[in-house]
Amino acid sequence: MDSSRPIGVFDSGVGGLTVVRALMERLPLESIVYFGDTARVPYGVKSVATIEHFTAQIVDYLLGQQVKMLIVACNTMAAAAAHVVKARAGDVPVLDVIEAGAQAAVRDSGLRGIGVIGTPTTINSNAYARRMHQLDPTVRVYSQACPLFVPLVEEGWLDHPVTRLTAQEYLKPVLAEEVDSLVLGCTHYPLLKPLLKDVVGEGVRLVDSATTTAELAAARLHELGLASRGERPAHYRYVVTDVPLRFQTIGERFLGRSLGAVERLEW
Amino acid sequence: MDSSRPIGVFDSGVGGLTVVRALMERLPLESIVYFGDTARVPYGVKSVATIEHFTAQIVDYLLGQQVKMLIVACNTMAAAAAHVVKARAGDVPVLDVIEAGAQAAVRDSGLRGIGVIGTPTTINSNAYARRMHQLDPTVRVYSQACPLFVPLVEEGWLDHPVTRLTAQEYLKPVLAEEVDSLVLGCTHYPLLKPLLKDVVGEGVRLVDSATTTAELAAARLHELGLASRGERPAHYRYVVTDVPLRFQTIGERFLGRSLGAVERLEW
Repeated sequence: MDSSRPIGVFDSGVGGLTVVRALMERLPLESIVYFGDTARVPYGVKSVATIEHFTAQIVDYLLGQQVKMLIVACNTMAAAAAHVVKARAGDVPVLDVIEAGAQAAVRDSGLRGIGVIGTPTTINSNAYARRMHQLDPTVRVYSQACPLFVPLVEEGWLDHPVTRLTAQEYLKPVLAEEVDSLVLGCTHYPLLKPLLKDVVGEGVRLVDSATTTAELAAARLHELGLASRGERPAHYRYVVTDVPLRFQTIGERFLGRSLGAVERLEW
Repeated sequence: MDSSRPIGVFDSGVGGLTVVRALMERLPLESIVYFGDTARVPYGVKSVATIEHFTAQIVDYLLGQQVKMLIVACNTMAAAAAHVVKARAGDVPVLDVIEAGAQAAVRDSGLRGIGVIGTPTTINSNAYARRMHQLDPTVRVYSQACPLFVPLVEEGWLDHPVTRLTAQEYLKPVLAEEVDSLVLGCTHYPLLKPLLKDVVGEGVRLVDSATTTAELAAARLHELGLASRGERPAHYRYVVTDVPLRFQTIGERFLGRSLGAVERLEW
């Protein structure tokens, strides 16, 4: 496969841009096509059958864009439909945020007690706990759904008393257990890191699945001989399913830089 | 038209059940077909073009169910796509929550100062202010988007310190004006009535567009000679686009009673 091909990254909306941001920093020679299904966001409250169906459509689109790797930058899709992605991808390698977060958490937890927070669908799927137990049957995993975090991030209340109170309430049962790591199991959550760091205190390390995914992508591309050699400048494309106005505004907060042109795909 | 036909009520999700509840109480002889587009909810953050497209699909479905009246029980659709409903409805009468809420607010405001709260799309459309000014050019309208109220209601935090703090923050600019009425411009908000009543205080009346819509429907059916004479028992159907589990759980909170069977439509 041609190593100058782009990496395909996809999410239900804007959240996966935290993964794009981490990829840009870790792998500055790689081109990226980002797909955000903004007309149908959020997936976190939808059924597995619906999520499988939407995921298949997105994967087919990105494969048509000749990507050399697929990154599922949406915890909900990774939890509910990773099998759909793998079945359609053929010989294109597939990574996802759950795999990356689970590996990093299990590797670094001293106490073997790990908290996981995410959307209701991600948490109900139990995908993080299952994967961590496959990696190490001795870890204890404590999960908590935090359905208000996504709307709070999208409202821009990143350091707001309402968000702090909400975080304290959601995290109370997890912090009552003996944990030394907390996996941010939703791509919106890295924007809450400073506030969450405060709420969980010194003794708990936050595992950010955006950076862990970028690390895993770097390792996998190297292994497979697919890393870009920088033959041409890295190119970034953003494709969404709704008109891009809101994506543009919120997206720049997630990406930490200007987005440039955003394309709209009509289905 | 046969007066024993059902009324078609539709919403982007579960919120329109507050309108169904008000209709059941005001018009107990009427049958109802409720349509909730739960696979694509929420509409409140989507573009006008996307909302128009989704609305047309729903209207065509309900017309196929032989409804005698269409009620747009979703402020976002009423704000962004009322023209789409009217264009497709032919001789089937159309009501919507914005028309009902605007009429009631303008009729009863002594001070001629009216606050309106809703989703970002509803508020940005300015549909309430426009309609109220058509009804009475002397009213002053103060609008405020409250994007966190829907997720807070769906979380069930109807009387929670986080919800109170959020309401205080959102309503501060509206309450700083001389208003005596606050229109609940989203069908989720009636569930927050006790808390909002506390936050706005004695001097401000809450205008609940679910009850005002039921009033308007009663008047219009009577006018048109379409009111059911109770030839057969009222029958209620609920049709949704995602698997109904979550709709069922949350829906019973909105409806205030058991839902019975929910049908799923696959598009």
